Amino acid sequence: MKKIAVFTSGGDAPGMNALIRAVVRSSIAKGIEVFGIVGGFSGMIEGNIIKLGRKETANIISLGGTILKTSRSKEFMQKGGRAAAAEKLKNNGIEGIIACGGDGTFHGAHDIWEEHKIPIVGTPGTIDNDLYGTDYTIGFDTAINTAAEAIDKIRDTADSHGRVFIVEVMGRHAGFIAMDVGISAGAEFIAVPETVTNLDQLYQRILTQGKQQRTIVIVGEGDEVGGATTFAQILKDQYEIDAKVTILGHIQRGGSPTVRDRVLASHLGVASVEALLAGKTDVMIGEINSKIAYTPLKDTWSKKKPIHEYQIQLADILT
Amino acid sequence: MKKIAVFTSGGDAPGMNALIRAVVRSSIAKGIEVFGIVGGFSGMIEGNIIKLGRKETANIISLGGTILKTSRSKEFMQKGGRAAAAEKLKNNGIEGIIACGGDGTFHGAHDIWEEHKIPIVGTPGTIDNDLYGTDYTIGFDTAINTAAEAIDKIRDTADSHGRVFIVEVMGRHAGFIAMDVGISAGAEFIAVPETVTNLDQLYQRILTQGKQQRTIVIVGEGDEVGGATTFAQILKDQYEIDAKVTILGHIQRGGSPTVRDRVLASHLGVASVEALLAGKTDVMIGEINSKIAYTPLKDTWSKKKPIHEYQIQLADILT
Amino acid sequence: MKKIAVFTSGGDAPGMNALIRAVVRSSIAKGIEVFGIVGGFSGMIEGNIIKLGRKETANIISLGGTILKTSRSKEFMQKGGRAAAAEKLKNNGIEGIIACGGDGTFHGAHDIWEEHKIPIVGTPGTIDNDLYGTDYTIGFDTAINTAAEAIDKIRDTADSHGRVFIVEVMGRHAGFIAMDVGISAGAEFIAVPETVTNLDQLYQRILTQGKQQRTIVIVGEGDEVGGATTFAQILKDQYEIDAKVTILGHIQRGGSPTVRDRVLASHLGVASVEALLAGKTDVMIGEINSKIAYTPLKDTWSKKKPIHEYQIQLADILT
Amino acid sequence: MKKIAVFTSGGDAPGMNALIRAVVRSSIAKGIEVFGIVGGFSGMIEGNIIKLGRKETANIISLGGTILKTSRSKEFMQKGGRAAAAEKLKNNGIEGIIACGGDGTFHGAHDIWEEHKIPIVGTPGTIDNDLYGTDYTIGFDTAINTAAEAIDKIRDTADSHGRVFIVEVMGRHAGFIAMDVGISAGAEFIAVPETVTNLDQLYQRILTQGKQQRTIVIVGEGDEVGGATTFAQILKDQYEIDAKVTILGHIQRGGSPTVRDRVLASHLGVASVEALLAGKTDVMIGEINSKIAYTPLKDTWSKKKPIHEYQIQLADILT
Repeated sequence: MKKIAVFTSGGDAPGMNALIRAVVRSSIAKGIEVFGIVGGFSGMIEGNIIKLGRKETANIISLGGTILKTSRSKEFMQKGGRAAAAEKLKNNGIEGIIACGGDGTFHGAHDIWEEHKIPIVGTPGTIDNDLYGTDYTIGFDTAINTAAEAIDKIRDTADSHGRVFIVEVMGRHAGFIAMDVGISAGAEFIAVPETVTNLDQLYQRILTQGKQQRTIVIVGEGDEVGGATTFAQILKDQYEIDAKVTILGHIQRGGSPTVRDRVLASHLGVASVEALLAGKTDVMIGEINSKIAYTPLKDTWSKKKPIHEYQIQLADILT
Repeated sequence: MKKIAVFTSGGDAPGMNALIRAVVRSSIAKGIEVFGIVGGFSGMIEGNIIKLGRKETANIISLGGTILKTSRSKEFMQKGGRAAAAEKLKNNGIEGIIACGGDGTFHGAHDIWEEHKIPIVGTPGTIDNDLYGTDYTIGFDTAINTAAEAIDKIRDTADSHGRVFIVEVMGRHAGFIAMDVGISAGAEFIAVPETVTNLDQLYQRILTQGKQQRTIVIVGEGDEVGGATTFAQILKDQYEIDAKVTILGHIQRGGSPTVRDRVLASHLGVASVEALLAGKTDVMIGEINSKIAYTPLKDTWSKKKPIHEYQIQLADILT
Repeated sequence: MKKIAVFTSGGDAPGMNALIRAVVRSSIAKGIEVFGIVGGFSGMIEGNIIKLGRKETANIISLGGTILKTSRSKEFMQKGGRAAAAEKLKNNGIEGIIACGGDGTFHGAHDIWEEHKIPIVGTPGTIDNDLYGTDYTIGFDTAINTAAEAIDKIRDTADSHGRVFIVEVMGRHAGFIAMDVGISAGAEFIAVPETVTNLDQLYQRILTQGKQQRTIVIVGEGDEVGGATTFAQILKDQYEIDAKVTILGHIQRGGSPTVRDRVLASHLGVASVEALLAGKTDVMIGEINSKIAYTPLKDTWSKKKPIHEYQIQLADILT
Repeated sequence: MKKIAVFTSGGDAPGMNALIRAVVRSSIAKGIEVFGIVGGFSGMIEGNIIKLGRKETANIISLGGTILKTSRSKEFMQKGGRAAAAEKLKNNGIEGIIACGGDGTFHGAHDIWEEHKIPIVGTPGTIDNDLYGTDYTIGFDTAINTAAEAIDKIRDTADSHGRVFIVEVMGRHAGFIAMDVGISAGAEFIAVPETVTNLDQLYQRILTQGKQQRTIVIVGEGDEVGGATTFAQILKDQYEIDAKVTILGHIQRGGSPTVRDRVLASHLGVASVEALLAGKTDVMIGEINSKIAYTPLKDTWSKKKPIHEYQIQLADILT
């Protein structure tokens, strides 16, 4: 293998640039050429491929987002789109690919391997942490710290006013963000899709605290009751409690990555180049107990990664 | 004057604690006793008054929110409520009061002076900066930096995706926050109540940029078109442009105050004690061109503070 | 067991307050009384013991430092000092103790168990991460992020000037901080006590980069060559290179804890109460692979925790 | 005037990039070409001149440092060096220059105007704030916030240990940084070159506080007694007090600029292009009371900008 390419896809996540940098430096160290596909699968179809070197990746380790841009491509979900992409890759002499993204990205990566036999390995890049096969995904640690800092600020005003604040954090299918953020924000209530959310219990906690006290409720966007706005509406309609709503939204995706995310991304970047060179394909390169783990791409979306049991207990004891 | 009290009221603002600390230390230096009224006008009516000393105000200079809590009191808007409050103050021997808040607070402060002749001076504590009689209000500098940092994060993801992002910042009656934040975020469009918002112009800018490029639009919540959600709806309905919406919300109120806010609050805190002792009442203590300025409370809400002309030009040239 | 106490000792670390909070809330949930010993071993000797409840520990989860203060006590290193401390504990009815600190703290804890049979468990609270028996210590994650943020700032100025900057980070006996910080700062050279530091190699890297380019060198304070000042002196004397020195110092100890540190501290706090109640003593409560692990106190200082092998490789490939 | 150039020189300061961006965008709006001189006066001598456009300056408003690099050039201090630089400028068709830096930069700018009649205006870019002719310099606001945040972290550990901490901040000739930072850190003692530093007084304050309490001393590096290390030595020798020393150093120069610095830099950038086009030369473009002010370059270093009197009083009352 003499030429490989790296791309980022789906929602961007802090640390993707650290991964790109590690892929580039480690490829150079191994004496192979490395390219970047700009704009995810769309860029692959368009053949938007650039040479990467030390200069292009200097000083990007501390930047949020991704210098290779990202996109969601409908065309790539069709066979024809993937065939066009595969041709562009072959025309450019690309012999192996490193994909960074979430399960949508891995579906596409799996298909291109199945259909066109271009070796491809995935690396987990998503703030949601909802990928089987790795303890943490790239971007998760930054996202939870960004969210916790935001909630520390909200707590200032919540304390000053003595009110109920409902804060919605990201996580469409899993409560990882809500759980870690809720525990570390010292929230009074945490709602995640993994456990049954009992609004009567929330109401009782508000009463126990006293309506004059601040109450902070963290809601994962994927909770079965609904998002923060729904929570507030129910509190109003059923319990006559006025709550303030904040939806943290896109600030959770950005920002300079934390040390954990930079080191994890560096580790996975170096390991993914080694995996390609060792002939691995159709697998995700993850980190489990600080060691590199290989998981078939299919397992990453078909198997469910659970929240740590101890966190559910902590949420119970400490809120 | 031997006993004075300080309180915070209305929306909380970072720097209120620095003001409380300065009032306390400066009172002690002048040999007078100082008290805190807990919970704004509600606390005044209830007589929730505590002694303050160096110990109670140690280490609060860096804290957001207000250790004296705040509230909005309907009762105080009635003559009877104010009479009850005045009695509580007199029973506690309070001979002068320092109020920190916005125009609602100053209305109440003015009334209690008019009706009960308890000397009272106001200090401008609101993140909105919309008070006549001071260059800046306590909390404004922190709020704009918090908002700008949040938008820096959103820009990471906006750049990665190449999309239109509409971000709503606080400021119900004035565009101070939106203007400073928009200029410093390098936004492509800034909508403030002080100028006419032209959506055709925004549409043209998006087209000029290219729909594939990121476009960041900063909307002050008081803009005549409406908030960010309305903006997005219009862009969708009239121009067929999909935009992502983020409402920064309550994170703008919290957080450790910036140096500017800590120093301003300290300056105004010391000056307000001096003003009370010098027999001043019914005035707001502000800072204009780095010097203490006294403005009749009535003027603070009846006169309009304009945005700097140069900022409107900057927004035009630089966006 | 009906009454337990918690204390912090040695160097303070961010997250100690989160641990105290978790100990208190979890004790209350178990129906036992919980006390705080103020000022570490000195406070134990003086009997400086206070009752802790939900109120005393509200809102401390986000605070750096330790509300229970800390100290280094020479008196406690003598048998007499420990006997005095044990008597004070018994007089107060304390039946079990949770200590949070580093190896100095654990020596003392071990001795008081050996000599006075007061059950005691340790929790790892030190920014250095150099304790055997836990993947991470409380405070480490915050310290590395603080250091990395500081170095991101230094890189701005290093890039602008194109110079050699030598930055010293904490870690007297181990290079954990230097390694993680060096990798995530994108440093050109990392010096840790665990590997041989080759200054000729550093000189070659500076030459390869070009003397006009910025070069960032991260030095752990325990490196066998010496600290940053020594490094700069040698570069000057032996290689005629002018380098700027920054010693990060005490800022690495403070600051609001990261999510990882808050969750880790909460986990260990709850587990340490359970351990005491389950009859455990003379052990440290750590976390290995996200699970609670018990390690004899003696092992925590006599066994050596190594840096991950992969990090040494990363440092080699990526710098 | 059809072609102008901008450069940064001396110590870098956060906000320099915002100035460059404003110069570029405003030049484009006026229909003139704009160039960047890379590496300050050294780059001028070497003719290291690049074309700047919207693309080169996109997204730089939030970056610390300067994309145009900076340097200190001995060659430019000679007539011959300046003649070589002037020739390079003329060869490139540069008809006017905008310099961003401190008094060293302005000396050079003044000379090149005097000797070669190339129109040049200066903009105040230095974290020290010690330039006559502007209320604030670009970079100052960021530097004081960076320093205050660092000291907030040190206070965590100072409070936990109850010790004397001496923190040295930048400012070789003026105490602006030390004064603002000291007030907002709630320091117990502030030493600046503008006032007489009385160590007996410091000793008395430490005694009053109690040696067991934390005491934070902020020392400006230009204080007549000396830096933090000298302070600690004197406290040890004369008063037998052990103090911890932290020298904040280069972290004060870097980091993403605050809103104030971004807006100030944008304002001065736009105004400096207008000044050149209006035929102004040999002046610094500053901001006084929010309005643009022109000051002969010579005055910027020969006249002394004093610290606000009220700050000296605040320091006295509040420490």
